[in-house]
Amino acid sequence: MSFNMVANHAIWPKVNDAIFGLAAKAKEAIDKYGREKVIDSTLGALVDDDGNLICLETVYSELKSLPNADIAAYAQVAGQPDFLEAVQKTCFKEYRPNAHIRAVATPGGTGSIRHSIYNYTNPGDSVLVCDWFWSPYVTISEEFGRTVSTFELFNEKGEFNIISFKEKFEELLKKQKRLVTILNTPANNPTGYSLSDEEWDEVLNIAKENAKNPENRIIFVVDVAYIDYAGIGMERRKFFTKFSNLPDNILIIVAHSMSKGYTMYGMRSGAAMGISSNKDIADEFYYSAMHANRANWSNGTRAAMSIMTNIAKDPEKTKAYEEEVNKTKTMLRNRAKAFVEASKEVGLEILPYRDGFFVSIPCSDAKKASEELIKENLFVIALKKGLRFAVCAVSEEKCRVSPAIIKKVLDNLEK
Amino acid sequence: MSFNMVANHAIWPKVNDAIFGLAAKAKEAIDKYGREKVIDSTLGALVDDDGNLICLETVYSELKSLPNADIAAYAQVAGQPDFLEAVQKTCFKEYRPNAHIRAVATPGGTGSIRHSIYNYTNPGDSVLVCDWFWSPYVTISEEFGRTVSTFELFNEKGEFNIISFKEKFEELLKKQKRLVTILNTPANNPTGYSLSDEEWDEVLNIAKENAKNPENRIIFVVDVAYIDYAGIGMERRKFFTKFSNLPDNILIIVAHSMSKGYTMYGMRSGAAMGISSNKDIADEFYYSAMHANRANWSNGTRAAMSIMTNIAKDPEKTKAYEEEVNKTKTMLRNRAKAFVEASKEVGLEILPYRDGFFVSIPCSDAKKASEELIKENLFVIALKKGLRFAVCAVSEEKCRVSPAIIKKVLDNLEK
Repeated sequence: MSFNMVANHAIWPKVNDAIFGLAAKAKEAIDKYGREKVIDSTLGALVDDDGNLICLETVYSELKSLPNADIAAYAQVAGQPDFLEAVQKTCFKEYRPNAHIRAVATPGGTGSIRHSIYNYTNPGDSVLVCDWFWSPYVTISEEFGRTVSTFELFNEKGEFNIISFKEKFEELLKKQKRLVTILNTPANNPTGYSLSDEEWDEVLNIAKENAKNPENRIIFVVDVAYIDYAGIGMERRKFFTKFSNLPDNILIIVAHSMSKGYTMYGMRSGAAMGISSNKDIADEFYYSAMHANRANWSNGTRAAMSIMTNIAKDPEKTKAYEEEVNKTKTMLRNRAKAFVEASKEVGLEILPYRDGFFVSIPCSDAKKASEELIKENLFVIALKKGLRFAVCAVSEEKCRVSPAIIKKVLDNLEK
Repeated sequence: MSFNMVANHAIWPKVNDAIFGLAAKAKEAIDKYGREKVIDSTLGALVDDDGNLICLETVYSELKSLPNADIAAYAQVAGQPDFLEAVQKTCFKEYRPNAHIRAVATPGGTGSIRHSIYNYTNPGDSVLVCDWFWSPYVTISEEFGRTVSTFELFNEKGEFNIISFKEKFEELLKKQKRLVTILNTPANNPTGYSLSDEEWDEVLNIAKENAKNPENRIIFVVDVAYIDYAGIGMERRKFFTKFSNLPDNILIIVAHSMSKGYTMYGMRSGAAMGISSNKDIADEFYYSAMHANRANWSNGTRAAMSIMTNIAKDPEKTKAYEEEVNKTKTMLRNRAKAFVEASKEVGLEILPYRDGFFVSIPCSDAKKASEELIKENLFVIALKKGLRFAVCAVSEEKCRVSPAIIKKVLDNLEK
């Protein structure tokens, strides 16, 4: 008989993180065969063509010139007030919804997702996500005794599957009366898909129709972790204005992260922003999230908050920062373009890519495919329904040659 | 009828943090009357005699010389392996228990406490703490649907109240069969009390006696947030060896924090260390905490981990760092000595102080006393059972004059 000290709800399989494991293997291959022979598409972080992590100069020169006390001091539990202003400005830009908005600092986007799920669902509830999802949504839900239900992201034409969304959304809402739906857009991880403005209208119309029943509580978590690398100008922020004047029983929570936009993955900073037409609901969001901050990690990384605030307050710093981000975004778009074009040329089926760090390749036995690709020195993450290729981490040149290698391995597996 | 979007378990009073509120008032008074006229004993952070936050030079020069990529990159979910080695070495020094020990990085001590409570209790359980406690223990417990029970920290002679501990410990264990007890020692916040080695023996003997019932699951969380400012040499670390060869159903979790020892409050770093005679129990601790990491904040602040690792690896850096901490500790001891002596002189009753950032003054209406003291420009935190004076934040000179001011106000209140 096995003996446990931990409570039943906290017993988990004794397994390590799969992505870090594969990344370690890729590193071994690089050491053995040389960087030019290996394609390491494992980690979700921006890497330059020489394999070095990209660290924005404007961000790190700001960090290194902060007074020590501004790094050392505790931040306030909800986050520094000027940061909570700056993050709204930085996130919404000219598309701020006409609504009551309250922000709370969190460690990366994860902290925001965690608060949204824990605070807005009951034990046993299902959280709704699309079938191509970031796996920690499941980890978070299961940690708290919740489950995840999925709708199909794409229909047969490769468009957003509004039929599947509506069906699952209404089924769960009818059963639970409260529903947290997570939409990771723009630049969905793992597919690179971004909902169009028209698709957003369809989603919100379904929500509004269901909001007519005052017993329903509808919560959308919009995970915008990759927003700074989406679209060419501001077009992928326009949808924010659609969160204006929603019914009181629709709450939007935007999960913002500094990890990607500021290349500060390791500094653990972001924010949860609650958006409601009703001031009390926005306040309730704030105090609930603040309590959860205090009870989980106490307060956020102060230096990261100061960096965003200082850049946002100074027009010259803002300009330099935005230019640097845009340069990186252009690099990313060129890589993705190379991968998408080469996939078309060799006949590799990929999911519709619009923005961001990843492209997904549907396949039936992704685990086997990933293992076979290791033999080709191409390291790619296996998901339930396919492979995730990280264009953020692979040079344009290698993005151009990868589809042919993947295609060959998948074809061989099907034989 | 009020309308809530948040789930019932996440509805909390719409109140802001009391300590930050009082700290803001103290700042106003300083701006108005000048620093020399105000005694600001609110925040639990080391402040020099001129009112500046102390930021250890050895720590911040290390931070500012880290390569950007070492700050930017994600840390592993459980923490960087070399950090998890370094934190054990740094915490236990020559008093490492003879046991299986596994460490996981957490944001400050809070993250460790949170994991301990969430993973090792069931909903509705009571967590045992002493009656002079750090209030977030309650916030954390309540957040997860747990409650807090208290034993009396002191008996009438001002010694550790082992009778009260035994009574409450056995009462809860009998009822719940599993019990998380938090002991914030050495240098208890808010009293400055440290359990002696003999008191630790008494506590562990009671635990071992109760561990004879194999159905009992006994978990001690040892919150050592202030350990680097306790004792003169290593004497306040000796108790760690007592965690060797304990029965399998006693698990020790040491909650370590970099906030105070490294003056990195705002960088959110620390570790939870599970100590067990049974390898499986230590592993179970590790994987449970790792899952909780992933589900709450994903991973820890990488730069903070690197700072500890780099200092620990380099004997010269270690020496310089330890000298700097010891200088600060001496300053703190002198301040506390001044406060304790002056209290004796004016006849102010205080709780037994041994180490650390705070001294506590028992009184019947602490809130009223704190308000009256504001009129004297002395800012001190009101607890349920008394006042908390932060010697960490007040110069030796002011520590010497404060007891008389407090005594006068308390005497007036009793009239």
